[in-house]
Amino acid sequence: MTSPQEYASANRERFLNDLLDWLRIPSVSADRTNHRGDVRRAADWLADDLRKAGLENVELITLDDHHPIVYADWLHAGASAPTVLIYGHYDVQPPDPLNKWETPPFEPTIRDGKIYARGAADDKGQAFAQVKAVESLLATGGAPVNIKLLIEGEEEVSSAGLSKYVASHADKLAADVCVISDSGILAIDQPSIDYSLRGIVYYEVELTGAKSDLHSGAYGGAVHNPQQAMVELLAQLHLPDGRVNIPGFYDDVLPLSQAERDKLKATNPSEDAFRETTGVTQSWGEPEYTISERTGARPTLEIHGIGGGFSGEGAKTVLPGKALAKLSCRLVANQDPHKIYALVEAHLRTLIPPTVTFEMRPVGGVGYPVLVDIDDPALKAAEAAYAQVWGKDPVYVRGGGSIPVVAEFQQHLKLPVILLGFGLETDNLHAPNEHFYIELFYKGTQLAISFLQEVAKKVTTGR
Amino acid sequence: MTSPQEYASANRERFLNDLLDWLRIPSVSADRTNHRGDVRRAADWLADDLRKAGLENVELITLDDHHPIVYADWLHAGASAPTVLIYGHYDVQPPDPLNKWETPPFEPTIRDGKIYARGAADDKGQAFAQVKAVESLLATGGAPVNIKLLIEGEEEVSSAGLSKYVASHADKLAADVCVISDSGILAIDQPSIDYSLRGIVYYEVELTGAKSDLHSGAYGGAVHNPQQAMVELLAQLHLPDGRVNIPGFYDDVLPLSQAERDKLKATNPSEDAFRETTGVTQSWGEPEYTISERTGARPTLEIHGIGGGFSGEGAKTVLPGKALAKLSCRLVANQDPHKIYALVEAHLRTLIPPTVTFEMRPVGGVGYPVLVDIDDPALKAAEAAYAQVWGKDPVYVRGGGSIPVVAEFQQHLKLPVILLGFGLETDNLHAPNEHFYIELFYKGTQLAISFLQEVAKKVTTGR
Repeated sequence: MTSPQEYASANRERFLNDLLDWLRIPSVSADRTNHRGDVRRAADWLADDLRKAGLENVELITLDDHHPIVYADWLHAGASAPTVLIYGHYDVQPPDPLNKWETPPFEPTIRDGKIYARGAADDKGQAFAQVKAVESLLATGGAPVNIKLLIEGEEEVSSAGLSKYVASHADKLAADVCVISDSGILAIDQPSIDYSLRGIVYYEVELTGAKSDLHSGAYGGAVHNPQQAMVELLAQLHLPDGRVNIPGFYDDVLPLSQAERDKLKATNPSEDAFRETTGVTQSWGEPEYTISERTGARPTLEIHGIGGGFSGEGAKTVLPGKALAKLSCRLVANQDPHKIYALVEAHLRTLIPPTVTFEMRPVGGVGYPVLVDIDDPALKAAEAAYAQVWGKDPVYVRGGGSIPVVAEFQQHLKLPVILLGFGLETDNLHAPNEHFYIELFYKGTQLAISFLQEVAKKVTTGR
Repeated sequence: MTSPQEYASANRERFLNDLLDWLRIPSVSADRTNHRGDVRRAADWLADDLRKAGLENVELITLDDHHPIVYADWLHAGASAPTVLIYGHYDVQPPDPLNKWETPPFEPTIRDGKIYARGAADDKGQAFAQVKAVESLLATGGAPVNIKLLIEGEEEVSSAGLSKYVASHADKLAADVCVISDSGILAIDQPSIDYSLRGIVYYEVELTGAKSDLHSGAYGGAVHNPQQAMVELLAQLHLPDGRVNIPGFYDDVLPLSQAERDKLKATNPSEDAFRETTGVTQSWGEPEYTISERTGARPTLEIHGIGGGFSGEGAKTVLPGKALAKLSCRLVANQDPHKIYALVEAHLRTLIPPTVTFEMRPVGGVGYPVLVDIDDPALKAAEAAYAQVWGKDPVYVRGGGSIPVVAEFQQHLKLPVILLGFGLETDNLHAPNEHFYIELFYKGTQLAISFLQEVAKKVTTGR
């Protein structure tokens, strides 16, 4: 009899071609104006594929104005078998700036063993490996665990719809373990398990001066240019050593224990390796923390961009009427994103000069930070699965990204959430030329199969 | 026999309709990618109109890669009559942000006695009034002065082609007076004469961090975000009192005499009037100078916009690889734009942290500041012309804008340059909903006729 692993191996080229088809659909959730229909198409495509894979009760859940959530299940492993909730997302980041892509973001191209496409690694490629793992189990005698799949279309815009759904459907989604493949391993030959995620709160700050843009010749010198007021404002938000300069910002941060810091040392990139990976002249940030700690265990305040002025081709001599900054804070346990938003807003208000008016708005929903219990049997199942596929034990790392829904799964469904990622930090996530190693797509499929088999052995059902 | 004034009056609706046609051509000189052909069309349209107006030797002068200059003349007033060089520009500012226009920028619309269109006031409307003044003279017995017309297509991008042309064609362009209608009067019922212009130097500053955009989750906290580095850099360029904080910046500024300050007091807007006009909560800038002085007699450093990051719809969690700021300095007599560029660059270099790399580039050509001799007979001709048309003497003001070519006309052609503008500072120049009062278009045509008649009386030929 064929094993699920053998089935996955024999069908891997079909899996790959199907993934390329899915990547061709530009499911950019942030751009509702231009891509709303594409997001829907990507959901429909997935639902069809889930039906073909042998999953049951396949449905598109559309709440209010939200992009659809795709649900499916297979619940025939028996009452004594544990239930696994598999989560992923089929929406992708905007592809801007388009002119920096070597090949178009929605025409997947294979070069040097990698798939170049927006969403290749984040998260279509990883979510699809999970789907194909389930197909491989169902096609070879059935899965050893009960399976529920929940693949959403708003992860890149903070999962507001899914949050509402999870909060009100705890029974339907009840499971013993949740697994998510939307993160990375340390290197192509070094598996690792993220046991934490940073939270996030995203917001925009608007400063208004004149009622419309002005001629910088006629008015320059007598009007406080909002672009200038904005740089003067934002420049006050960090101390020279990299710390965020907002009163109370660090109050709730759970300090790192020495044991944890020692463990994290093993995975800290050298300064040279970090420069090589990123291209920066040198690393930056709080000097008393290592690079891994700064990106995984410390909160940030990031400026994503400043609009409202002229930054196009040529010379426009405008004195802009507005400046609009997009900002976010990445948060760590035990910070509360709503509390941080309020702290930032309150502090900014104290810094606004009388020459401009100030407005601040949240963008998308918030994400709470997550720390997973390092002794959970489901985490041990992941460790065993990585070891089987890579022939090498995974190391444990603090993830710097945010999957807002993870904290909500933990909170509402009261289960451990295992981050079973297999991307790389060099995949250019959220940037031009995002890519995904075909080898990791194949290994990820095997990993997801082994994980479900290990959960069947290690996790007891009933919560 | 019909006077030129009567001719202009009888034909004013035709003049207006022809202007609307010209305004429909989107001659955006800054955007060579999309509007190069439109700029050329606007030049061809003008050349046809000049021929119909009775001008001779009409030609399009195209230097290298530059947008065309339109030249025409009428030299039959006799050797003892003075020669007037009329300068204007047919190129316009980019219309961004498009969504702020109540009616499309290139579909001229008449509302409340005003023409709404990009270029309505700056400068097609004003340049066209000059052309129609010449037509009115030529159609009613000829002009009392010899006339040369030079209407260019790169004023909004610093007139680099025209600069070269003027420097090498002093004989062809030889005249006794140069007149330019590309500025404003104090109010619709208060004529004024700008006897100075600010110079300008425009440049962009680029800071680079990582080799591409990064995921702000994976890298945030360990990389000096170039958008953050940019705000930290630019925030250092002004002192809290509004002064530019660059060593040597004010060294060459010609101080205002008490006599000139007293004269300027008459035209200084009240704080309330300034708030009303601009919509700002309060004026800003060097406290020891009045609003008129700040905008006319003091130099500035303006931030036009900051690009390179994400400022679009939604939430993109990018840590940008670059930040690009567009900046300019407005300059006053006797500052040198090249010297100021060098001062700014040298100072910025001292402020760049080791975590980002710095590049600075000039954008377009520079403009020298101008001060016109207040006793020049051509200025008296302008004063008389304004008084005739408005029934009220003009006041003298310091103009804050820049027409880089004015300094070059003075330098290369050795003649007084008279700013015979008739726009208003509320016309939304360089901003959405630019407009121009039809009444001022009509009065401007009359003004231009009277000016040429007054020059014939007051200015002696031969330099």
